Amino acid sequence: MAKPVLTPQSQDFPRWYQEVVAKAEMAENGPARGTMIIRPWGYAVWERIQSELDERIKATGHDNVSFPLFIPMEFFEREAAHVEGFSPELAVVTHGGGKELAEPLAVRPTSETVIGDAMSRWIQGYRDLPLLLNQWANVVRWELRPRLFLRTSEFLWQEGHTAHASWDDAQTETLNILHRVYHEVVRDVLAVPVLLGRKTEAEKFPGAEATYTLEGLMRDGKALQMGTSHHLGQNFAKAFGITFSDETGAQQHVYTTSWGVSARVVGGLIMAHGDDRGLRLPPRLAPQQVVVLAIKDETVEVTQRLVADLRAVGIRARTDERTNLSFGRRAVDWELKGVPVRLEVGPRDLAEGNVTLVRRDLGDKQQLPLDGAAAAVPRLLDEIQSALLDDALQRREAATFDVDSAGEIDGPGLFRLPWDTLGVEGEARMAERGYSVRCLVTAEGRVPDPDDRGLIAYVARAY
Amino acid sequence: MAKPVLTPQSQDFPRWYQEVVAKAEMAENGPARGTMIIRPWGYAVWERIQSELDERIKATGHDNVSFPLFIPMEFFEREAAHVEGFSPELAVVTHGGGKELAEPLAVRPTSETVIGDAMSRWIQGYRDLPLLLNQWANVVRWELRPRLFLRTSEFLWQEGHTAHASWDDAQTETLNILHRVYHEVVRDVLAVPVLLGRKTEAEKFPGAEATYTLEGLMRDGKALQMGTSHHLGQNFAKAFGITFSDETGAQQHVYTTSWGVSARVVGGLIMAHGDDRGLRLPPRLAPQQVVVLAIKDETVEVTQRLVADLRAVGIRARTDERTNLSFGRRAVDWELKGVPVRLEVGPRDLAEGNVTLVRRDLGDKQQLPLDGAAAAVPRLLDEIQSALLDDALQRREAATFDVDSAGEIDGPGLFRLPWDTLGVEGEARMAERGYSVRCLVTAEGRVPDPDDRGLIAYVARAY
Repeated sequence: MAKPVLTPQSQDFPRWYQEVVAKAEMAENGPARGTMIIRPWGYAVWERIQSELDERIKATGHDNVSFPLFIPMEFFEREAAHVEGFSPELAVVTHGGGKELAEPLAVRPTSETVIGDAMSRWIQGYRDLPLLLNQWANVVRWELRPRLFLRTSEFLWQEGHTAHASWDDAQTETLNILHRVYHEVVRDVLAVPVLLGRKTEAEKFPGAEATYTLEGLMRDGKALQMGTSHHLGQNFAKAFGITFSDETGAQQHVYTTSWGVSARVVGGLIMAHGDDRGLRLPPRLAPQQVVVLAIKDETVEVTQRLVADLRAVGIRARTDERTNLSFGRRAVDWELKGVPVRLEVGPRDLAEGNVTLVRRDLGDKQQLPLDGAAAAVPRLLDEIQSALLDDALQRREAATFDVDSAGEIDGPGLFRLPWDTLGVEGEARMAERGYSVRCLVTAEGRVPDPDDRGLIAYVARAY
Repeated sequence: MAKPVLTPQSQDFPRWYQEVVAKAEMAENGPARGTMIIRPWGYAVWERIQSELDERIKATGHDNVSFPLFIPMEFFEREAAHVEGFSPELAVVTHGGGKELAEPLAVRPTSETVIGDAMSRWIQGYRDLPLLLNQWANVVRWELRPRLFLRTSEFLWQEGHTAHASWDDAQTETLNILHRVYHEVVRDVLAVPVLLGRKTEAEKFPGAEATYTLEGLMRDGKALQMGTSHHLGQNFAKAFGITFSDETGAQQHVYTTSWGVSARVVGGLIMAHGDDRGLRLPPRLAPQQVVVLAIKDETVEVTQRLVADLRAVGIRARTDERTNLSFGRRAVDWELKGVPVRLEVGPRDLAEGNVTLVRRDLGDKQQLPLDGAAAAVPRLLDEIQSALLDDALQRREAATFDVDSAGEIDGPGLFRLPWDTLGVEGEARMAERGYSVRCLVTAEGRVPDPDDRGLIAYVARAY
């Protein structure tokens, strides 16, 4: 048997991750510590995620904007919890244009402050509300133990920032983003099943009243936060003087929200679906859904026709005409990259009017008549999309354990127990053992309202 | 007569620019000096430009990637001209994560160095060439006299970076980007006529062998560079050790190119087309091509139907249902924002089965039967697109002057004279008077080949 291309997951999951990111040509470390180079295949995956998110962010009435990378340091000091949370992670520019700056500038770790300042100028009356903004940006949070996609000092994300006339309006926004925008993309496009819930006080965003989260479970039994949505109450409105005159003419502070999904979800995608042969990309997300591989030069023309037919039915497809490379190496390449379907066109099959189809998720091969091969693919892609979600869901179910006390929590997986049993002190003790409360849900598994009692905590080790 | 909304261009062009950027809600200054906030309308224009460029960049075989914001300072020192050109403009991060860094980091002013370093690892043999990369990114070049869109310390752009096996291949790439990608978008979408030519040695990119440019003329008679494409020869290949083994097995240095268009073209768009009433956006670029204005509450429903009809024929259209605001104020708003066509639906017109159509470029009004109004719009938008290009072209022709010597160059406009007449010394003297050679072309007006002689220089004041 040939030496495996990757270290098996069961043997060393972190090494498997490192290898698959490198060999699938997703990303690599940049020259400055903590920075990342996202290569074409990794970036194409991120662009697909961007486009799915952006479409839904716009469809729900938000406008894209661009705020500055550099923020005056004093802005951070205006909101006590915010400065406490972010100060240790700031990168600071002290020199510009060959001179020392009179006032050092922070490289944005997030933009609540600078956007809050603008909102205070843009919002006058109730007719200016809601104000619904989003930006696609890079942010910097200094990282001592970087890991590609998952923890890097600079990362790419979208950050939404909105202002509302009432607490209820802000709450509706916070949860709509969680359910309609983020959950739809993560579950239906990335095929990653997630728990939706509220963060504990210890885990919430610095400056938020409440943070809501989507938590995925990776194949090593560790959790990964796939996105968060924050109700900021009037904290930033008060810190930045964001007021409006209501319908009676009285001055009121607005309520704000913020919410973000970063390119770290690419890491989540890799770890939720990848297997010992490489990535397994869900078809709705895959930059290429089908690769048509010419085994010999004489079959190149047929692969090109097949790709044209596939594109005609709306499939993202490409040929692989590199007949100078061995067939085996090329097959391994596409498996590493996780393309959902591989069609192999060889002279022998072709003589019988057939092509070979290989499903990346299951690895099984089947012969297929060349005529009608293109027409069969769309339904197959839907099947693969569902199969990946089901597979991940079953893994999560199998790795979720009900426990009665913190003492029973041990090893990989998600542990479910009453939040009252654990409590703030129990949470702090679990933290010392490397476990965190990923989210709180109601007894029925719903995202909790502020008044809900009898909450359930999900506890896990996490990225 | 009502007070004009904007300072007339003829009275004070810089003030007109400042006012139109603010009142059309395109952008404003950020809190840190030299930074910019791009507001929804300005960002929507930039997104349209991005999408037109990105489509063509991908169609010509380039892959998008993401390289780090922070670059080790020593990278800049490897290419002598590059470090000399960019050192004075660098922003430098000296502190991260609460500590002083052992090695300060530059915030990227452009990415030739960090991408060159990666290319040296990614390229082994001739089969790895050409390597065609692009990234959408923010870059920082310290700016002492900032002006929104035109000169800001941080700006948004795309930067292409490619590597080739031969000088000729790199030259073909450099010119293809200029002609097929940039010129197509600037002329056909932005409707801005441009001169294509080569920069002089004094004006070329630091580290380039040759820089090619697109130069537009603004309505105040000053030139604006709308994009550049650089043949970098083997300068960066040698500085970063980017080599490949050719078909004979010999090690060779690659030839590289780089090219960029930034959000400064939004400033160019404003100054090439805008008039005393505000922006005039070319229809192919406009985020909203048609606004359908309900004059009274009872006509709101008809405006909604009309927008649905317009969208059905592929038009970007929206209603304006703000009947609480005066009709005049709303009309002024849309004129400021430059929406190409305004349809006004009032009860009196409607009783006769009509709506009023106002062309933003000409300002003329006409009555139109409600039935068939939507169907008439696509051709009208094409007409407006051509009219804006023609108008700008005529203005440029009228402001282009043939002169025999540098002494005749004075005032606004483009001055054309033999490059041999001016020469390097003449160029330096013109620079003292605030004029620069915008580009060199052949006697026939073509982009020059390296061997072409008898070149013509275009000289102007520029942004």
